[in-house]
Amino acid sequence: MEKRILGIDPGLATLGFGAICCPSDCRSVEPIDFGIIRTPAHTETGDRLCMIYDDLHSLLDQLQPDLVAIEKLFFYRMGNTIAVAQARGVIMLVLAQHGVPLVEFTPAQVKQALTGYGNAEKYDVQQAVARELQLSVIPKPDDCADALALSLTAWFQRVQ
Amino acid sequence: MEKRILGIDPGLATLGFGAICCPSDCRSVEPIDFGIIRTPAHTETGDRLCMIYDDLHSLLDQLQPDLVAIEKLFFYRMGNTIAVAQARGVIMLVLAQHGVPLVEFTPAQVKQALTGYGNAEKYDVQQAVARELQLSVIPKPDDCADALALSLTAWFQRVQ
Repeated sequence: MEKRILGIDPGLATLGFGAICCPSDCRSVEPIDFGIIRTPAHTETGDRLCMIYDDLHSLLDQLQPDLVAIEKLFFYRMGNTIAVAQARGVIMLVLAQHGVPLVEFTPAQVKQALTGYGNAEKYDVQQAVARELQLSVIPKPDDCADALALSLTAWFQRVQ
Repeated sequence: MEKRILGIDPGLATLGFGAICCPSDCRSVEPIDFGIIRTPAHTETGDRLCMIYDDLHSLLDQLQPDLVAIEKLFFYRMGNTIAVAQARGVIMLVLAQHGVPLVEFTPAQVKQALTGYGNAEKYDVQQAVARELQLSVIPKPDDCADALALSLTAWFQRVQ
């Protein structure tokens, strides 16, 4: 049976998503859709979280993924970690409300899966995403490529 | 007009809440309700966030607060900051869905407001909560007293 995997790169200002389709023979993989959910700056955090809540529910209704892969958060991602974690809480809530299973990967696990090297450069990972999905250009913005890299990591894990 | 202020001490395992009622003359303040929303350990984070979402919606329907005071999160609260921030994201979502205004306070602001000293001990703050609300014992668990301290801080700010 065909499997649909949705990757999510969490964020409050920009949430990246990238869905792939894996045929039952698991020999190839194709992109279904990728993009971003953007929320406006200078807006109350609660209102931005409402937008993410509503848009992600619509996205899940539309894509009907069998599995979601999401980035694991760590302290060392300084700066806006609290804001990203708050958005990630809303994302995990929506996924649970939809009853869709979840896998979590660290950035190092994604790099390892896509390039064979856990300390790979961002650009190398993006090139690997384009190659695997036979895309002539790297998906932009970066959040889309990051999200597709997450869904590919989940796919590789299942194939192996 | 009577004002109802709800304080929320965010958490994934235990969310403390404490609501107070401020009569229109603003000379006294009374507790309405306080307690905790607890979610079970060894349960998927998404499912725990769903419980917080549902229980907090019910609590807001029941208490109908005019204002919510919530603790501001910082990095220095090590350990489970990511988990608390994720729960806080869901709390802020629910508050925005209810359209209830929000104020945020740091722990130092709460200590300052309740005891006049920003580095006060936890026990001194709890004693101040009991005294202000004319409670014969300190509300337990601590999360309730912390939540009531947040609502009192918001009240003091309005009275002054």
